[in-house]
Amino acid sequence: MVPQWIIEKKRDGHVLSETEIRDFINGYTDGSIPDYQMAAMAMAIYLKGMTPEEVAVLTDAMMHTGTIVDTSSVGLPTVDKHSTGGIGDKVSIILAPLAACAGLGVPMISGRGLGITGGTLDKLESIPGFNVNLSEAQFVETIRKCGFSMIGQTGEIAPADKKLYALRDVTGTVASIPLITASIMCKKMAEGIDNLVLDVKVGSGAFMKTLEDATALAHSMVRVGKAMGKGIVACITDMNQPLGRTAGNALEIIESMECLQGQHGDGDLMQVTLALTAEMLLLAHKADSREAALRTLKDIIASGAAFAKFKEMAALQGADVTALDDLSKLPHARIVHPFPAPKAGYVSAVSADAIGRAVLVLGGGRQKTDDVIDHAVGTSGLVKIGERVEAGQPLVVLHANDEDKLAQALGFVRDGIELADAPVAAPTLFHSTITD
Amino acid sequence: MVPQWIIEKKRDGHVLSETEIRDFINGYTDGSIPDYQMAAMAMAIYLKGMTPEEVAVLTDAMMHTGTIVDTSSVGLPTVDKHSTGGIGDKVSIILAPLAACAGLGVPMISGRGLGITGGTLDKLESIPGFNVNLSEAQFVETIRKCGFSMIGQTGEIAPADKKLYALRDVTGTVASIPLITASIMCKKMAEGIDNLVLDVKVGSGAFMKTLEDATALAHSMVRVGKAMGKGIVACITDMNQPLGRTAGNALEIIESMECLQGQHGDGDLMQVTLALTAEMLLLAHKADSREAALRTLKDIIASGAAFAKFKEMAALQGADVTALDDLSKLPHARIVHPFPAPKAGYVSAVSADAIGRAVLVLGGGRQKTDDVIDHAVGTSGLVKIGERVEAGQPLVVLHANDEDKLAQALGFVRDGIELADAPVAAPTLFHSTITD
Repeated sequence: MVPQWIIEKKRDGHVLSETEIRDFINGYTDGSIPDYQMAAMAMAIYLKGMTPEEVAVLTDAMMHTGTIVDTSSVGLPTVDKHSTGGIGDKVSIILAPLAACAGLGVPMISGRGLGITGGTLDKLESIPGFNVNLSEAQFVETIRKCGFSMIGQTGEIAPADKKLYALRDVTGTVASIPLITASIMCKKMAEGIDNLVLDVKVGSGAFMKTLEDATALAHSMVRVGKAMGKGIVACITDMNQPLGRTAGNALEIIESMECLQGQHGDGDLMQVTLALTAEMLLLAHKADSREAALRTLKDIIASGAAFAKFKEMAALQGADVTALDDLSKLPHARIVHPFPAPKAGYVSAVSADAIGRAVLVLGGGRQKTDDVIDHAVGTSGLVKIGERVEAGQPLVVLHANDEDKLAQALGFVRDGIELADAPVAAPTLFHSTITD
Repeated sequence: MVPQWIIEKKRDGHVLSETEIRDFINGYTDGSIPDYQMAAMAMAIYLKGMTPEEVAVLTDAMMHTGTIVDTSSVGLPTVDKHSTGGIGDKVSIILAPLAACAGLGVPMISGRGLGITGGTLDKLESIPGFNVNLSEAQFVETIRKCGFSMIGQTGEIAPADKKLYALRDVTGTVASIPLITASIMCKKMAEGIDNLVLDVKVGSGAFMKTLEDATALAHSMVRVGKAMGKGIVACITDMNQPLGRTAGNALEIIESMECLQGQHGDGDLMQVTLALTAEMLLLAHKADSREAALRTLKDIIASGAAFAKFKEMAALQGADVTALDDLSKLPHARIVHPFPAPKAGYVSAVSADAIGRAVLVLGGGRQKTDDVIDHAVGTSGLVKIGERVEAGQPLVVLHANDEDKLAQALGFVRDGIELADAPVAAPTLFHSTITD
């Protein structure tokens, strides 16, 4: 195998063979193919694309560079959910216990926040004692006991992806649907799941800005999942504004616990959570219809079982669950600063980017991967596009531990929330469900 | 300047600014831009192209990463010739003294052979004592004294090109007209010349296999030369068979000296040499017409001045010129083995690649840049396409110092020379002259 011949083949728009893709990925992972050859290949893939079959092989090759979790002892149909990322997206924390209550096994391996995007692991760690660093055996045992577990990577999952992702970031090859697909799917498939629900975000606060791009990515991921023999579906949902009313780690745990206790009715966060969880039930044949699935899930919330299930998992993972019954025990910020509406009107824009930057400057996110974060800070009580507000009514509440950082965050919030005189329609929350 | 933003701009097909190109090349040369970012950029350039203005800036940026020869003290119009490379191409050795006799200053910086392609420096070094390693001052002084000098690189010419060429070789980005243009032109422009004649080879033995590709490369190089304020013209000439009748270092010196003494009439080698030298005279306004230039050059050959001029330069560069008057003093091989025609017929193919490989296996070329070469070996008396041969008549004579290597070389020659029963037309030697 001469690496440049494979690069040239893709450069000229030809379809790579399975052997060529596997040899290239294995060579890159073991270092025999250097970064500069992978960079040229990534640019060739960016500009010439890959067939669904090539993307499936690429995903499988990247997955097999690392460990794959063995969930065979769980004894339940395994299902996970993955979101392409947005601001205020705490869906996983509500969805996983709900799905577990409905009889699914949910082996959820999540990531940490970077830049303006938060991470599920950071949110969970705002609960005192919560341990996201389980071994694979502990992870599987937790799922066996309570139906789900939420952790960070065990062992080394898809080291090829870790290397390639860092390289793409500095070589202008991030926004490639084949490469994004393989990067996401190789990690999710390594969880040892039977089924996967994808939440592809679209809008100004999402990686995919247009419905066309989001749809193309959704199709690409669904095809790879099917090629790998999994049940899979993708929902395209709105990220023109943050999801829910909070952003920031402990604040998002509070909102999630309230949702699990049925306190947020049918706001956007619960609508998205219930819809995605219903897709999980459908994939695992735990419901006959979407309507039946939604009824089941609402009953679970109303019964208190979902909240109890989350506490059961948290306890198994070392958390002090009294902090979940009494949320005032979670970290809280010294300064709580409402930002009032300068005039009456209708909310016409809530920039997810601005809210994300506000949380970041407050200390709730990471600029670099080794930054230490402040779990207490963030935003709450955020208005949503289309809502009517009166002058002086808070548009958002900032939670800060530092006056200077608060001032910076206020700047982002001031620029990011817009009011109009005439009524404004809320953005479409669900765009489509992609099954092929 | 964030390197990946510039990569992304080219990736998306946009025109890079002068600052972006210069910053990228300077950063790559000083190491602040790593190989993997240059590799992604090279692939983006390969697939998205560059405007003539971008290629001119790229060339100038690469040239300015190294030294530029100051020929201002020469006091003559300076002109050089560059060939894109072929087998048996010893034109430079005949052309440079001819042009010097006609009143031009020729600062010729040449390269060494690699793979099947020979190098002018290796050929010159088969003359005992010939020193190609002059300082820049010695180089300019030699041109001042006799009108021309033929050397290897002085100081560090275009280090960006050296780095980039090695990278392109392993990243599938060699065959890019913008990158080829910049690579060739940055080195020639660093010679401090006023004018340049390009010999773009086309055919099975050339890098450019089709007339379309050769024409595109010629236009690209001519445009860059003009943008840099030079007089420039490109001739597209045939490389479907080796040029002349010899290949191998001392053997090519012998053929060249014979040509300088008028012993090869109007064979393909002299036709190409005279045509290219005439273009040099026209660019430097040393002739009113192509016909007048050709008459002048033929008179120079006939007078013996060109051969005397070569010896004058060789003496200034340390050569034992008695070896040029008595060519038997040049290195010669132990085994001289004619390869006879297996039947009578017309020569229908003489693979330049096969002859190049024969010379290479005989030891007359380099597989790797640090290989030591045998100046004596090679081929002579090569037939040309279209010539009539009788059974048993030598098609080529092999010069070897090793029986095993001879056997290998015979294999290449046997496969590379084909005979037909019916008459065959000689390939078109001159295709076109590109001036814009």
